[in-house]
Amino acid sequence: MLQLYGNSKSRAMRCLWMLEEVGRPYQLVEKTTRADDLQTAEYLRLNPNARIPTLVDGDLVLWESMAVNLYLAQKYDGPMHCTSPEVLGLAAQWSFWAMLEVEHLLLNLLEHRALLAEFARDASAAERNELLLKKPLGVLNDALAGCDYLAGNGFTVADLNVASILVWGKMARLDFSAYPNLTRWLNACLARPAFVRVREQARRK
Amino acid sequence: MLQLYGNSKSRAMRCLWMLEEVGRPYQLVEKTTRADDLQTAEYLRLNPNARIPTLVDGDLVLWESMAVNLYLAQKYDGPMHCTSPEVLGLAAQWSFWAMLEVEHLLLNLLEHRALLAEFARDASAAERNELLLKKPLGVLNDALAGCDYLAGNGFTVADLNVASILVWGKMARLDFSAYPNLTRWLNACLARPAFVRVREQARRK
Repeated sequence: MLQLYGNSKSRAMRCLWMLEEVGRPYQLVEKTTRADDLQTAEYLRLNPNARIPTLVDGDLVLWESMAVNLYLAQKYDGPMHCTSPEVLGLAAQWSFWAMLEVEHLLLNLLEHRALLAEFARDASAAERNELLLKKPLGVLNDALAGCDYLAGNGFTVADLNVASILVWGKMARLDFSAYPNLTRWLNACLARPAFVRVREQARRK
Repeated sequence: MLQLYGNSKSRAMRCLWMLEEVGRPYQLVEKTTRADDLQTAEYLRLNPNARIPTLVDGDLVLWESMAVNLYLAQKYDGPMHCTSPEVLGLAAQWSFWAMLEVEHLLLNLLEHRALLAEFARDASAAERNELLLKKPLGVLNDALAGCDYLAGNGFTVADLNVASILVWGKMARLDFSAYPNLTRWLNACLARPAFVRVREQARRK
């Protein structure tokens, strides 16, 4: 059975979403980001970076959440599968783009709007991140003009990987009003039953 | 014909290396990272991020250097091709890992050892980056214990993408002596005729 090490309130969330989309039986092995959870000889053998998530699928051990999802999409046929090198290339492009152009800004915004203790939040850091996000969010909004998906003619791992980062914008009370295409697309992604199931699991924690 | 926008002294180098490995005819459209080169209506239509590289292959326009290489590997059969979802997953894993765990540290080290004007270099910044690089370089060195390649049984896009970042360590006079497996693997990667051709082109500039 597929095993995912991580938890639903971490970057592992995006792999849980993918696993729910794929529909194969899987086991979530709960791991926090705490050092005493990750710095064990047993876990370091699986992931020497001491990070989550890690996927174990038979003999294959895979880390990096985006790569885990690209693998699951190609391994297990279904609507997530990239059926051509072109769609796979675009899925990889958007996944790298989201990690390199968006994730750190959005995570820092989320920290200063919600994750940090109130006294430790810095409003000017939040403002700075919101300003810097205008460029990549504009790129994404323009890419979604007149189309519903980032790669190919249906929902793929490209949409899932990017939406799994953009959802933080909702939690960070980011003003999405200047990005109507992005908003329409993000709401459609987050309405998928597979995502709703993962979110419900996280809320019950 | 395949067209790559960029130049051989930028991240586009790794795509040029890949194109040389693939062996199909291609054209390099010279683009610097200067704003007046990238902020044109014509180029922004191809790459709204105003970055290099960008690949144009018929109707497909692709950015993000790592994704361009994963695409080229899958599109054009040859030794680079990831023949299974497992090998593709590992190639994606190592590509994300190298971008997220290594690239910024190594680039910053390179800046303070070589790229910046002498008076602007900060020896303590270089020292800090070298210290922080110990963890990921150790992970890579351990992964290469007793094997010659990062994914599958031959040289793939996984090796190319990671080596295209690690080569900066040579330029930055990084001390590789603690990483013998990494050193052996990197030297083998950089001895490939495709890489040597790209390096020679860059030197003639």
